[in-house]
Amino acid sequence: MIKECMRKSLILVLFFMITSVAVSYAGDISYTGDNLQWNQVAPGVWKSHIGAVQPTTLLEAAGAVPAIQALDKMGGDSPFPLNRSSITATVDGRTTVLSLPLRRDERIFGLGLQFKTIDQRGSIRYLHVDHYGGVDNGRTHAPVPFYVTSAGYGVLVDSAEYITVYAGTANRKGAPDHPPVLDRNTDPNWNAVPPSNTVEILIPADGVDIYIFAGPTPLDAVRRYNLYCGGGCLPPRWGLGFWHRTPMRYTSSQVEQEAREFISRGYPLDVIGLEPGWHSKSYPCTYQWDTGRFPDPKGFVGTLRSLGVRVNLWENPYVSPDSELYPLLEPLSGSHTVWCGIVPDYSLPEARRYLMDQHDREHLAIGVSGYKIDECDGIDIWLWPDLAVFPSGLTAMQMRQTYGLRLQRMIDELFRSRNTRTYGLVRGSNAGSSPLPFVIYNDYYSHRDFITALCNSGFCGILWTPEVRASESPEEWLRRMQSVCFSPLAMINAWSDGTKPWSYPEVEDDVRAVMELRVRMIPYLYSAFARYRFEGIPPFRPMELEPGFLTEGDTGARETVGTRNDRKKLIIRSEVKDQYMMGDNLLVAPMFAGESERDVVLPPGAWYDFYTGAFAGKDEVITVTPGPGHIPLFVRDGGIIPLAPVGLHAPVQGEGVGLEIRHYGSAPGHFLLYDDDGETFDYERGEYVWRELTVTKSSQGRLEGDISPFTGSFPSTYGEVVWRFMSE
Amino acid sequence: MIKECMRKSLILVLFFMITSVAVSYAGDISYTGDNLQWNQVAPGVWKSHIGAVQPTTLLEAAGAVPAIQALDKMGGDSPFPLNRSSITATVDGRTTVLSLPLRRDERIFGLGLQFKTIDQRGSIRYLHVDHYGGVDNGRTHAPVPFYVTSAGYGVLVDSAEYITVYAGTANRKGAPDHPPVLDRNTDPNWNAVPPSNTVEILIPADGVDIYIFAGPTPLDAVRRYNLYCGGGCLPPRWGLGFWHRTPMRYTSSQVEQEAREFISRGYPLDVIGLEPGWHSKSYPCTYQWDTGRFPDPKGFVGTLRSLGVRVNLWENPYVSPDSELYPLLEPLSGSHTVWCGIVPDYSLPEARRYLMDQHDREHLAIGVSGYKIDECDGIDIWLWPDLAVFPSGLTAMQMRQTYGLRLQRMIDELFRSRNTRTYGLVRGSNAGSSPLPFVIYNDYYSHRDFITALCNSGFCGILWTPEVRASESPEEWLRRMQSVCFSPLAMINAWSDGTKPWSYPEVEDDVRAVMELRVRMIPYLYSAFARYRFEGIPPFRPMELEPGFLTEGDTGARETVGTRNDRKKLIIRSEVKDQYMMGDNLLVAPMFAGESERDVVLPPGAWYDFYTGAFAGKDEVITVTPGPGHIPLFVRDGGIIPLAPVGLHAPVQGEGVGLEIRHYGSAPGHFLLYDDDGETFDYERGEYVWRELTVTKSSQGRLEGDISPFTGSFPSTYGEVVWRFMSE
Repeated sequence: MIKECMRKSLILVLFFMITSVAVSYAGDISYTGDNLQWNQVAPGVWKSHIGAVQPTTLLEAAGAVPAIQALDKMGGDSPFPLNRSSITATVDGRTTVLSLPLRRDERIFGLGLQFKTIDQRGSIRYLHVDHYGGVDNGRTHAPVPFYVTSAGYGVLVDSAEYITVYAGTANRKGAPDHPPVLDRNTDPNWNAVPPSNTVEILIPADGVDIYIFAGPTPLDAVRRYNLYCGGGCLPPRWGLGFWHRTPMRYTSSQVEQEAREFISRGYPLDVIGLEPGWHSKSYPCTYQWDTGRFPDPKGFVGTLRSLGVRVNLWENPYVSPDSELYPLLEPLSGSHTVWCGIVPDYSLPEARRYLMDQHDREHLAIGVSGYKIDECDGIDIWLWPDLAVFPSGLTAMQMRQTYGLRLQRMIDELFRSRNTRTYGLVRGSNAGSSPLPFVIYNDYYSHRDFITALCNSGFCGILWTPEVRASESPEEWLRRMQSVCFSPLAMINAWSDGTKPWSYPEVEDDVRAVMELRVRMIPYLYSAFARYRFEGIPPFRPMELEPGFLTEGDTGARETVGTRNDRKKLIIRSEVKDQYMMGDNLLVAPMFAGESERDVVLPPGAWYDFYTGAFAGKDEVITVTPGPGHIPLFVRDGGIIPLAPVGLHAPVQGEGVGLEIRHYGSAPGHFLLYDDDGETFDYERGEYVWRELTVTKSSQGRLEGDISPFTGSFPSTYGEVVWRFMSE
Repeated sequence: MIKECMRKSLILVLFFMITSVAVSYAGDISYTGDNLQWNQVAPGVWKSHIGAVQPTTLLEAAGAVPAIQALDKMGGDSPFPLNRSSITATVDGRTTVLSLPLRRDERIFGLGLQFKTIDQRGSIRYLHVDHYGGVDNGRTHAPVPFYVTSAGYGVLVDSAEYITVYAGTANRKGAPDHPPVLDRNTDPNWNAVPPSNTVEILIPADGVDIYIFAGPTPLDAVRRYNLYCGGGCLPPRWGLGFWHRTPMRYTSSQVEQEAREFISRGYPLDVIGLEPGWHSKSYPCTYQWDTGRFPDPKGFVGTLRSLGVRVNLWENPYVSPDSELYPLLEPLSGSHTVWCGIVPDYSLPEARRYLMDQHDREHLAIGVSGYKIDECDGIDIWLWPDLAVFPSGLTAMQMRQTYGLRLQRMIDELFRSRNTRTYGLVRGSNAGSSPLPFVIYNDYYSHRDFITALCNSGFCGILWTPEVRASESPEEWLRRMQSVCFSPLAMINAWSDGTKPWSYPEVEDDVRAVMELRVRMIPYLYSAFARYRFEGIPPFRPMELEPGFLTEGDTGARETVGTRNDRKKLIIRSEVKDQYMMGDNLLVAPMFAGESERDVVLPPGAWYDFYTGAFAGKDEVITVTPGPGHIPLFVRDGGIIPLAPVGLHAPVQGEGVGLEIRHYGSAPGHFLLYDDDGETFDYERGEYVWRELTVTKSSQGRLEGDISPFTGSFPSTYGEVVWRFMSE
């Protein structure tokens, strides 16, 4: 009996040892083909869980709740878009390796907020939340591990680790499609990076969740990704007006005076952002008003609101010992300090609660409308080190990859709890952020690269603003102001320089004009955001997501494209990175200081000049010389653009502002104009209206416009309608 | 009974579960103070093994065998140089974290081949074998995880992982010496990186070996490190002559002609290096002679040798399918290819054997004298990915960190097996390489930063050459040639440009003069290398290792130093990075193109101009305007420099070349002149002679020189001696 007992014990122990080893340190566990399980988690969305369950993931940190209904609407019969048997995964005790196939000519887009490149194929990306250091290497403010390819599907690696993506660079020995060996001594075709038909991904963890999103188009795959994250964010309507951030140490009276000067000079203004000096101490922060500079915060916020201006507060996440929150958060913070402030572990509900309560009491209760969450991307030299530990047990790296997400989610929840929408800024983000109402910015300040970032933002569910700080010339100032007015958040950030829209008198009228145009665009832009919210369609997006822009079998080689003048130009179609779409109908082609003309690559079909309605070109690359006053804007044939009147603020519910509805070209048109209260989450309970704008040709061949009636139970934002057929 | 049995089984299982968890995924295991065990492994050297035994380490890969006798000679009563209780280590299943204390004013030197900075305090270093990308961040050709501080001790983290060193940047919450919190709103002293009195190190592995090396001076700590690695390398004497690498596709007759032209024009030449075209195919390599360009390799090597010139062969480690080695090495190679070639796993003895046999048979047997091991540092985009696997089970990262070491060791062993010394070049190295006869080089080509690299090489047991390729002006060519002639390996690398010493006729005489001076310096320089070999003293070293150069309590603040002209200058003493010591007596202060004067920071005592013997300065910073023909060189008071006659080749055993022995200043002098056969390892069996050169003052106050007799059992290299008292 004793022997029997011992035997059983031993068997039990051995069994445990074996399984334990298998789970923790086994030789690799490989998953290929059928033994890699794909679970369809929504129509057109498949998930595979590989290896061990991880303590956090990006979607978990972002609080992503899939918009299943919207995904259902997209259709449920998409086939799995890859050859299942060509996807492999290998897990050992420390790392997980994924391998996914590529077609020979397939392009890879996304992998986060790149500033210089569109096509990521042939590169390695080290996806790591960080400031952008001037090189596209994956270290960026939003290193979203999602890519979409020209073949029309998307891949999300939902890992909160520093993952490395070999995007068509790594060649496996003996692979059937291994490139041929060449001799550098004599072969001019020798290539330092022989192309690979594989995406390989290194995840320094013993498991990962991976998602595949069906197309059939790249835009469809992006939409499914956005909807799986919960759908895009819908800012309050005022968020789409003009923003201005005042200098760091301005007092409340200086800020008030600045707001009044905007109004008296006739420059639109919806939001004033306060920079560090509103805190009693900053870097690290107290989150408490400086009573010297802001003796009456409530009165100050109320005065601005009476001027039609909302207040946004800058903050960083590191807590000063002088903050009332310090004793509460200190036990809930990481092992290391940042600027001598503590780093709260906001994966802990009680830490979130302390901050949210304080913010609610001290800021929201007096009417503050949102935040700018700075410095959560980090620069290694001042951030918590990768060896820091946190009370939740999350590693320093997991915290780094998710910190911006957690902060955004917290602020979003805070405003939701008051049934009030917010819109703000953040420096660090990641996958899952599509529904979070924050726009990314940074200090890098290359105008051209800022536009490439705006293009890339559309590939991975993030928003980006090319904020304006100062400029070396009036021309640069104007060109930057024109760009930012065609971005998700139109803002001057004068925290350091004290610039104002009228700082360059030579161009002050042109600057005012484009700011006015920004406000006029709000009905159009707000509708685009509503489609982001409900359908996952990015309001700002790269040309590559435009139907027909990527040619079938696009090879990545330079190809010759005809122009209006019958000149021929070399255009790399996959690298059109200085123009983008705002909404469905408007192509934005910013100008840069020092340049008087530029090429614009038109997507298929006829396009028209926004300002004049004149024909601009069809199926070609055009060259434009717009003069200083205009940012080149083009509208597709049949495109409808509803415009509000010139005004200082975004239209308000019940205001009944008149609409000028423009139609371009000669084709019939259709547009969905979105309306809701513009400020609350009541739209989530159905309190919204889509009004159909329709242009048809009469039997006499004339264009005629029609708008469906307003059917909302809330007061309409819009009133009278005037139709303008711009190209007639 | 059954219950009892079940109870025992459960206890056993539970016990196993608990211990298993504790070992693998436990909350952290922390070592502090007394529970961190320090084992004195040699006099003045302590080792602590923390956590799990690792599959490889740097010292293991380098094959380091401590030179215990030499360490014994340095003295065995050094106290442990740090407060033991202030060193901590924490291990969890995936990472090891080390924390070591710093004094407030302590400087940190080393951490590998930096190109721009000397003091590493206040920086983060990601120690990762890589090409140098233009920024000192730890990614470099030799990211040696060894540092030495101004407090006079050294630390080696013997890990083959990508480790991160927070060198005085990370502050722990609640640390007793935590810096004070400042308010950025108002405090001009606010610092983005508050200083930390801790070095924290992140090792992504579940264990590590750490070594502490005693001083008392920084040079002593460096010497102990070098000796623990086995002592410095002693090149063959010819290795210190002049080297020239011919263009990539030169034929044997072109190479012979080039060698003959050196001789006919009177330019020294000891080694010709062949670049990729000697292989039948390169990138990847065959290691087989191209029979078109080199129809008679044996005859070719023999012809060059008859001209007094040795042959060095370029190679990279990636094996072409067209190589005879391919079928042998293919099963022993990693999962991924580089330039479509396989990556042999040279941690496997049989892989080493195949390559060494082939090299021995095809190259050494016909008289080849060494190799240039290119491309083993890697650039991520073409190297094997970090997710590659190798048959030995070493990870891709461990292989990356050690690949250059393994290649050097293999070549060293190959030549040792023929009792022949070699000297060569390598692009990737790491800790433990001190005894390996290789010099690091790269493509970066900033002359000034090349000199800083030469300074830094002396902190961590590596050698560096500022090789010369081409130049934008005759002046730059001359200045670069002057620098490289005062480096461990004096070489033109004309693989791409086809430059020759006489390529710039305006400066050809000055170039010839400095090449001649290089060869004349060999008795002095070879003696310096012998002290590297036997005593661990780097032959090229930064000023900070010079006794008295770092002032006591050096604060890192700019301090005022008097000059000869009674001007005052601001000098950051810790960042003197454009001058260095060659041997004990010679201070080298290179000139850079476009500059006609420079400052030279003299170490304590009087210094004299090398060329004239004139007094240069004492305890001061001097400004020199040397003119184009001279690289500024200074000799300490009492310094002795033995010079060979002008010649085309390094002196040879038995040649009996005359020596001009120079003495500078007025102080008595002493110098140890090393002699051996210059080519074999017989010196390791005692076949060498140290001859004492002594200068004393006679009773009449005149200087007199004396040389001890030659006592070797081998033929002396040197003959007649002439003394020159340069400052009399």
